[in-house]
Amino acid sequence: MPDVIAKEDFPVSRVRRFLEPGPVVLVSSRRGEETDIMTLGWHVVLSFLPSHVGLMISAGNHSHSLIRDTGECVINLPTTALTDTVIGIGNTSGTEIDKFAHFDLTAEPASKVGAPLIGECHASFECRLADEALVGRHGFFVFEVVKAHAAPSPEHPETLHYKGDGIFMVSGDIIDRRELFQPEMLD
Amino acid sequence: MPDVIAKEDFPVSRVRRFLEPGPVVLVSSRRGEETDIMTLGWHVVLSFLPSHVGLMISAGNHSHSLIRDTGECVINLPTTALTDTVIGIGNTSGTEIDKFAHFDLTAEPASKVGAPLIGECHASFECRLADEALVGRHGFFVFEVVKAHAAPSPEHPETLHYKGDGIFMVSGDIIDRRELFQPEMLD
Repeated sequence: MPDVIAKEDFPVSRVRRFLEPGPVVLVSSRRGEETDIMTLGWHVVLSFLPSHVGLMISAGNHSHSLIRDTGECVINLPTTALTDTVIGIGNTSGTEIDKFAHFDLTAEPASKVGAPLIGECHASFECRLADEALVGRHGFFVFEVVKAHAAPSPEHPETLHYKGDGIFMVSGDIIDRRELFQPEMLD
Repeated sequence: MPDVIAKEDFPVSRVRRFLEPGPVVLVSSRRGEETDIMTLGWHVVLSFLPSHVGLMISAGNHSHSLIRDTGECVINLPTTALTDTVIGIGNTSGTEIDKFAHFDLTAEPASKVGAPLIGECHASFECRLADEALVGRHGFFVFEVVKAHAAPSPEHPETLHYKGDGIFMVSGDIIDRRELFQPEMLD
């Protein structure tokens, strides 16, 4: 297992840098003494400020009830150093195992929500439920990121992007096209 | 400009293969004689069957009104062969230019919706509005993919993944971890 990664405060308005490219994330939650972690690829950026992110979490997933009951979760960004862990978490249920213990992950206290951060991830975003209108029909939660933490380096961590059927795309080359953008499109 | 890419029918239940890794897409629309194209990175898979996909399209974008009025669009997947076109489309407005003409793109007829496919893209997904509950508050549209088209090769096209601030990640290596998945998790 990789070590716990030291993180710094990160602006909540900039979480798109990590989420918009579409990586697999680990979503952690807590209800009382019970914690859970789920692997999730179905997320979307909805606005910069407030920093809104949408997560599709089907009702069949144990995390759904913890997150619905508490209105809180943490979105954690794993790198390829955690590939097998990401798959293991996605293949097991929190009704049967304690995922932090089973996968030897470090639960760190968040600052604004009750759900724990996952220490071994590159970045963690503390979330509070902002709109539950589509939770019942689609399992789609709108969260506000109320606090963000990220490792200062590397600037472009190697992330996992799931294609279904056991196949992942690993993040590749970075290309800079700032010169083609209008200045107001950059931040 | 790359050539038009021949596509074949593709199962709508499998569009996650292309969308879940988080690529930048081009969304095309038509209202009467008027067409538009927008660049979009804020999308999410919501279910396999029905094949539901969510798109965040802010009201400030000209495409928003065409799509809201018609309840239809096409999600097109560009490859890195279209990088400069993707940026140009994102930096211009359909209120000022005809994007198909200006960017020398080929509008091909869809089979189930009025919005056109973009011929030069690797895949195209015809969409009909399925739930507009969050359109007013968040600009979030839930669509059903009613018909999908994809080029038979390459199996893993080189896609663009936006990080904000003029920086893109290009899709990288493919890794196969089928042996770590429970059979019911594969399809």
